[in-house]
Amino acid sequence: MSYVTEKLPSVLNDAVLKHSEPVPEDFVKVKGIDYSNPNAMDMRASDLINAMKTMGFQASSVGKACDIITEMRAWKGKHVDELEEHERQGTIDDDGYQRTTIFMGYTSNLISSGLRDTLRYLVQHKMVNAVVATAGGIEEDLIKCLAPTYVGDFSLKGSMLREKGMNRIGNLLVPNDNYCKFEEWIVPILDTLLQEQEAYIAEKGQQCLDANTDITSPIWTPSKLCDRFGKEINDESSVLYWAHKNKIPVFCPALTDGSIGDMLFFHTFKSSPQQLRLDIVADIRRINTMAMQASKAGMIILGGGLIKHHIANACLMRNGAEYAVYINTGQEFDGSDAGANPDEAVSWGKIKAEAKSVKVCADATVVFPLLVAATFAKGQETQNDSMICE
Amino acid sequence: MSYVTEKLPSVLNDAVLKHSEPVPEDFVKVKGIDYSNPNAMDMRASDLINAMKTMGFQASSVGKACDIITEMRAWKGKHVDELEEHERQGTIDDDGYQRTTIFMGYTSNLISSGLRDTLRYLVQHKMVNAVVATAGGIEEDLIKCLAPTYVGDFSLKGSMLREKGMNRIGNLLVPNDNYCKFEEWIVPILDTLLQEQEAYIAEKGQQCLDANTDITSPIWTPSKLCDRFGKEINDESSVLYWAHKNKIPVFCPALTDGSIGDMLFFHTFKSSPQQLRLDIVADIRRINTMAMQASKAGMIILGGGLIKHHIANACLMRNGAEYAVYINTGQEFDGSDAGANPDEAVSWGKIKAEAKSVKVCADATVVFPLLVAATFAKGQETQNDSMICE
Amino acid sequence: MSYVTEKLPSVLNDAVLKHSEPVPEDFVKVKGIDYSNPNAMDMRASDLINAMKTMGFQASSVGKACDIITEMRAWKGKHVDELEEHERQGTIDDDGYQRTTIFMGYTSNLISSGLRDTLRYLVQHKMVNAVVATAGGIEEDLIKCLAPTYVGDFSLKGSMLREKGMNRIGNLLVPNDNYCKFEEWIVPILDTLLQEQEAYIAEKGQQCLDANTDITSPIWTPSKLCDRFGKEINDESSVLYWAHKNKIPVFCPALTDGSIGDMLFFHTFKSSPQQLRLDIVADIRRINTMAMQASKAGMIILGGGLIKHHIANACLMRNGAEYAVYINTGQEFDGSDAGANPDEAVSWGKIKAEAKSVKVCADATVVFPLLVAATFAKGQETQNDSMICE
Amino acid sequence: MSYVTEKLPSVLNDAVLKHSEPVPEDFVKVKGIDYSNPNAMDMRASDLINAMKTMGFQASSVGKACDIITEMRAWKGKHVDELEEHERQGTIDDDGYQRTTIFMGYTSNLISSGLRDTLRYLVQHKMVNAVVATAGGIEEDLIKCLAPTYVGDFSLKGSMLREKGMNRIGNLLVPNDNYCKFEEWIVPILDTLLQEQEAYIAEKGQQCLDANTDITSPIWTPSKLCDRFGKEINDESSVLYWAHKNKIPVFCPALTDGSIGDMLFFHTFKSSPQQLRLDIVADIRRINTMAMQASKAGMIILGGGLIKHHIANACLMRNGAEYAVYINTGQEFDGSDAGANPDEAVSWGKIKAEAKSVKVCADATVVFPLLVAATFAKGQETQNDSMICE
Repeated sequence: MSYVTEKLPSVLNDAVLKHSEPVPEDFVKVKGIDYSNPNAMDMRASDLINAMKTMGFQASSVGKACDIITEMRAWKGKHVDELEEHERQGTIDDDGYQRTTIFMGYTSNLISSGLRDTLRYLVQHKMVNAVVATAGGIEEDLIKCLAPTYVGDFSLKGSMLREKGMNRIGNLLVPNDNYCKFEEWIVPILDTLLQEQEAYIAEKGQQCLDANTDITSPIWTPSKLCDRFGKEINDESSVLYWAHKNKIPVFCPALTDGSIGDMLFFHTFKSSPQQLRLDIVADIRRINTMAMQASKAGMIILGGGLIKHHIANACLMRNGAEYAVYINTGQEFDGSDAGANPDEAVSWGKIKAEAKSVKVCADATVVFPLLVAATFAKGQETQNDSMICE
Repeated sequence: MSYVTEKLPSVLNDAVLKHSEPVPEDFVKVKGIDYSNPNAMDMRASDLINAMKTMGFQASSVGKACDIITEMRAWKGKHVDELEEHERQGTIDDDGYQRTTIFMGYTSNLISSGLRDTLRYLVQHKMVNAVVATAGGIEEDLIKCLAPTYVGDFSLKGSMLREKGMNRIGNLLVPNDNYCKFEEWIVPILDTLLQEQEAYIAEKGQQCLDANTDITSPIWTPSKLCDRFGKEINDESSVLYWAHKNKIPVFCPALTDGSIGDMLFFHTFKSSPQQLRLDIVADIRRINTMAMQASKAGMIILGGGLIKHHIANACLMRNGAEYAVYINTGQEFDGSDAGANPDEAVSWGKIKAEAKSVKVCADATVVFPLLVAATFAKGQETQNDSMICE
Repeated sequence: MSYVTEKLPSVLNDAVLKHSEPVPEDFVKVKGIDYSNPNAMDMRASDLINAMKTMGFQASSVGKACDIITEMRAWKGKHVDELEEHERQGTIDDDGYQRTTIFMGYTSNLISSGLRDTLRYLVQHKMVNAVVATAGGIEEDLIKCLAPTYVGDFSLKGSMLREKGMNRIGNLLVPNDNYCKFEEWIVPILDTLLQEQEAYIAEKGQQCLDANTDITSPIWTPSKLCDRFGKEINDESSVLYWAHKNKIPVFCPALTDGSIGDMLFFHTFKSSPQQLRLDIVADIRRINTMAMQASKAGMIILGGGLIKHHIANACLMRNGAEYAVYINTGQEFDGSDAGANPDEAVSWGKIKAEAKSVKVCADATVVFPLLVAATFAKGQETQNDSMICE
Repeated sequence: MSYVTEKLPSVLNDAVLKHSEPVPEDFVKVKGIDYSNPNAMDMRASDLINAMKTMGFQASSVGKACDIITEMRAWKGKHVDELEEHERQGTIDDDGYQRTTIFMGYTSNLISSGLRDTLRYLVQHKMVNAVVATAGGIEEDLIKCLAPTYVGDFSLKGSMLREKGMNRIGNLLVPNDNYCKFEEWIVPILDTLLQEQEAYIAEKGQQCLDANTDITSPIWTPSKLCDRFGKEINDESSVLYWAHKNKIPVFCPALTDGSIGDMLFFHTFKSSPQQLRLDIVADIRRINTMAMQASKAGMIILGGGLIKHHIANACLMRNGAEYAVYINTGQEFDGSDAGANPDEAVSWGKIKAEAKSVKVCADATVVFPLLVAATFAKGQETQNDSMICE
C-alpha cells in the first residue's frame, strides 16, 4: 500500500486504485511508428498500414481492412478438376482454382471524385467480380469520358453556381454542359435500344417477357444497359468500359435516379407511344445467383445507402458473406442501414458469424487509396486475373 | 479606453478589444424559453418550437422547418375556374384551389420505427401528395400488418441474434418469422400479378410495352405494385393502404432491394420460364410529371440516400422546388448526396434559389414527431384534404 | 412449407426463411403516436416523450433520458434524523431527506444559445447541485447580462465578419463590443480580487497556501471566482447569479481558456509585479468531495470534452454515478472521451455497472428543451427545492 | 438542339439542359492516381497525398493540409542580425533565422493511441514549438513509461471490464494497475513539489505570488509541472521527456481533470493542512506571450475541445495565426467549438483572413501518420532543428 493511501478514505482506494487482473499473454500492446526504422521516411502504404494496426481507433480499423482484403484476395479453393460438374460455378481463376467472389459497391460521389481511377483500376485488372453503384455512379463515369469534373469548394454559393450552370458535388463542380453532351451521346443509343426491344417483342410474342439471361437480349435491365454503355463509350478511362470488356456485371437497380433517368424520361416524349422498359426483376435474380454460386463472398463497400444494402442482401442468399469491409461515415445511432456496422448484418445472416469484417469510419477518398496501395496495388504478388464462370 | 489597456501591447488592444460596427436593427436576439409564461410547464409542441426559433444551432433549424412546413401547407393559388384547361393540373384542394404538391421521402428504418404511425397519419389525411421510400420502407409497412417489430438494443450481439432468428435494425428487432409470414402473404399475389401480365401481353401483342398510365395495367412498375399491395393488405395501420385509398403514389425505384426482392427472386424459380417484370421507366415518367405539373413543390425528406436524391431530382424537372425540409444525420464533408445541404441542390436547379429551405441535422425520430405535432397535427386549422388532379 | 419453396434451392430456404425462436413475452412492441388520442393535437412534451419510448433509435433514447431524469429527481433516501452524524452529508432536501446530487455539465456554446434560459431555470430553482462548464460557459453568461448575442447563419464569411467585429459561434453572432464591455466590467473586480489576495498573504504568511474551503477566502480558485462573478453581476437572467444565491458550486478548471483568460492576461500587465493567481487543486478537492459525499450521484451532461470528463472523473471517487444522461453529437469511433458512451465510463468505475444511463445522440438545443419540459418543468409535482448540506 | 428536345416541354429543356458558362482556365480537373506510373505500386506517402489533392472531398483536404504544413515549416524570415533587439523573439532556428512558431494540440486519446510515437517524434526533433494537451494527454504519456496500453475492442462490455480492472478508451484497454503504478511514481514527486513550494513561500514572503517565469520557481503551474514530470520520467519514449529536454512548453490548463487530479486530490489528505497549489494565470500569460512574440504562428490541432480552443485563443493575441490545420471528427451543426471550421476562427481574429487553413474531417489516427510521413518525416530536406528563443 502506498504511503498516501493510509490516510485515504477507503472508497477512494477501492475505486481509483482498484487492482486489475493479470493481462492475458496474447494481448497486443499499443504501439506506433518506429521512426528509427530506415523505411520510416516518406513511408510506403504497406508500412504505414502495418504500423496502424497497433495504433488503435480507426487506424486499427484500416489495418484490419487491409488484412481482410488481403485474405479475401488470397483465398484459393479447389481446382476445377476436383469439382463436380454442378460445383463448377462462382469465381474461378485462370489456373482453374476457386477464388473469392468480390462484390464492390460505391456511391455516386466517389465516381465524381478522383477515386474513379482507383475503381477503374480494380475493374480493369479483374480484381473485383461484381460492381454495385447508384445511378450517378454509372452516368458520371460515362460523362467524365465526354468532359471533365473540376475541383471547387464546399462553400460556393448555390444560387451563384446555378446562374453559371455549375453543379456542385461537395467540393467538386460539374458544368451543366456535361449533361447536354451526355444527352447527345445517349439519345441515339436509347433509340437503338428501343428498336431492339420492339424487334424482340415482335419475334418472341407471348414469350417476350420470359426469363432470359443473355446480356444482349433486349428486355433491358439496368445491368444490361450498363454493359451496353460500357461497350458504346469505348474509353479506357471508364469503369464501365472495363466492366464490359471483362464481363464484370454492374448492378444499379435504381438506374433511373439521375441523369440517365432524365434522359429516359425525355425519351418517352420522343418514343411515344412506344416506351423503352427497364426490368429490375432479372437483375435481382442475377446478383442473387452470383452470391449463391460464389465459393466465398467478399464485400468491399464504399459509402452507404442502397449500394451497401444491395450487396449485403444478395449475400443473405448464401447465408452470409465470408469477408466484409465497409468504409463510410454513417453512424448507427439513427438506425439507418447506411450507418449499421457489420455486426448488424450478422444478425440478418448477410455476413457469416465467423466472417472477417470491419467498418472503417472515414471518408473513402482518404482511406481507400491508401488501402488499395497496400493491397491490390502493392505490386509484389502476381495479379489475380480471375475469371467469372457463370 | 479602459484603465487596463494603457499598459497593454497595442496588438492586444487592436485584436482582442477591436470595436464592432453597430448591430443592424433587424438582428434577432438569442433568447430561450420564458419559464414565467403560464404555458411553460409541460409545454406544447408549438410553444416549444416557437421558443426554439431564437435559440440557435439545430433548435433554430427545427424552428425554421416548422415555418417552412406551415408555409408550404398554407400556400393557396388560383381557383380552378380561373385556370385554363391545360393549367388544371398539380394539386387542387376540395374547394378547387391550387395547393403545394408535397413530396415526402423516408428511409426504410423509419417505417421500422414508431414513426410509421406518423407517416401513416400524413398519408391517411392526404397531407402529402407523393411518397418516396426505399424497399424496406415498403415491405416493413406490410410486414408490420402481419407481425410486430420489437424494441431491442443497439449492442445486442449479431451472432446470438442470428441463432435466435432475430434481425436487428439499430435498437429494433424483427423476428425472422415475420418474413416467413410475408412470403406466405405475397406469393399468391405475385402469382396473380404474373397471370395478369401474361394476359396483358396476350391481349396487346406488339403494343404490350407501350406507354400506359393506368395504375392497374399490368406492365408492372414499383409504384403500381405499391398501390396493389396497399389494396391487398387492407389494413388501416398501413401507409400503403391509405396511399391506395387516397390515390397517393408511392415511388420506390429499387423495390427489389430487400425482402420483396427476395420474394421476387424466389418467384422466378416457381414461375420459370415465365417471369414477372418490373419496369422503372414508367415510374420515372410518373414522378417527374408530378413535379412538372405541381403549382408549387414542397419536399419533406427524412433520411438520406436514394429517397433524398429521387425527390430532388424530380424537382429539377420544374426548375426547382419552392420548399424543402431535410432531416438527416449526414454531413457534407464526404461529398455524399446524403449529407448535402439544400444549397448544393440549389446549384443543380433542384431547389429554387428563392426557395425556403432548411436542413435539420438530427435523427428524424427525435425531431419529426415534434414538428408534426406543431404543424400537420396542430389541430387548429381545418384539415387540408387535398385532392390530386392528374 | 410455402408453395414457392418446394422449388427453391435449400440454401435460400434456410438462410432467408429461417424460423425464429418464440419472442419473449416481455418484449416491447414498436409503436408510435396514437393520433386518435385527444391529446394528440399539438402534443405536450410529456405525451410526446411518452410516445417516443417505443419508437426506436434516438426517440427511445430521449424516452429513456426522461425516465432517468425523473428517477434521479424522485429518489429519496433516509431522513436526516435517521442518519449518524458522519452520514449527514450530500444533498438533503428541505424536509430533511437525502436526495440525488445532480451534476450538470454544459459546453460554452450552450450558454451562447437560448438554452441558457433553461440552464438558469434549473439553477434558479435548485434543481441541480453542481455545475461544470468551460470558460466560455462562464463568461458568456456574464456577457449576456451586458449585451445580447444574435441569431446569424452558419455560412456567414469569417473575413467579412471580422471586418465588422462580429464573432461567430455556429449560427450565432457576438459583437466584439460585448467583450470590450466585459473588460470594463471585470477589470475593477480583478483589481479587488488581487488586493484581497495580497492582504490574505500578508495576514497568513507561511500558511497562506494552506487548505481553506471558505468560498470567500482569497487564494482564488475557478469556483470561488465563479461565485464572486455571480454575486457581482447581480442579474436574475444569469446562471452564475443564481448559483451564487443558491450556493451551487460552478466548476471550470480551465477558466483561463477564453475571454476571462484574456482579461487575466491583460491584468498581469497592470498588476505587475504582483499577479492574481488561480489555484485548481482546491477545486478538484471540492468537486471530488461532493461526489464522494453524495448519497446518490446523477450526471446530466450536455456536450463533450472537458465538462463531460470532469463530472465522470469526479464520480469515480464514489465508485460510480447511479444515473447518467449524456446528450451530445460525438461518436465513439475516434476513441475520444467526447464520443464515448456510458458503457465506456462503466469500465472506469465512473458509472456504476447497475446504474441507469443513456446517451442521446443529438444537438442539445433540440433535445434538452423537450426533456426539461417533460421533467424539471413538467409542473405537476411540487418542486424539489433541495438544499446542499456540506 | 438535340433531336429529342424538339418534343420536350420547354421547362425541361431550360432546367435540365441549361447551358453553363465557359469553365475558367485555371479550374483544376478532378483526377486520381495514375497507376501506370512506376511509383504507383505500394505508393509512398508523399505520392499518395500528391494524388489526393485533385481527388475531391477529404482527400483534397488532406492534400491541402500537407501543403500548409510544408509551407509553415518552410517559412523563413529575417536573420537575427537584421533584427532590432526588441524584435529578437519568437522562434529562431540554429542558423539564426526567424521561423514559424508551431503550436501542436492533441486530445488525451491520441496519446493513448499509437500516435504517441509520432507526437513524440515531432517534439524530440524540435519540429513543433509548443504543445497543448488535456490532462489525459499528459498522464498517459507518463503512465506508458510505467506499463503498456493494449489493443482491445469497441464493443467490450463495461461491467465485465470493470470487474477485471480494465479501463476502456475506444478500442484500447488500460489495466487499472497502471494507475496504481502511476500513484507510486508520482506521490514522492508531489511531496517534493510541496516542500519546494513551502520553502519558496518562506523565502519570498509577501512577494511569493508575484510574477515569475523561471520554470523551476515553485509557484507551480501546469506547464511547470509538465516540465518537471518530463525530467523525472527520464524516458526517451516520452513526449514530456523530450519537451523538457528541448525546452518546449507543454500547456494543460485543466491538468487536474484526470489521474493527476486524482493524485493531487489524494495528496491533499496526506499534506493537510498544507496544500500543493497549481496556478493557471501564469500559464495563460506564458502561452499568450509565445503567440504574441511569434514571427508567424502555425496551428496543428488533432481533436477538439479545450486544446483546440486554447491554441486558437492564444493566436488571437497576435491577431490571428498564419497557418492552421485542424484534424477532427466534429461537425459545425451543433455550434460547438470542437466542430467549428477555420472560417469561424477567422471571424474571431484567431486565424488571419489571409491565412492558409484547412480542416480535415477524419480520425487523426488515420490521417496524421500519412501527413507526417509526407511532411515532417519525408526525410528529403535537412531537419529544421529550430530553437526557441524566449
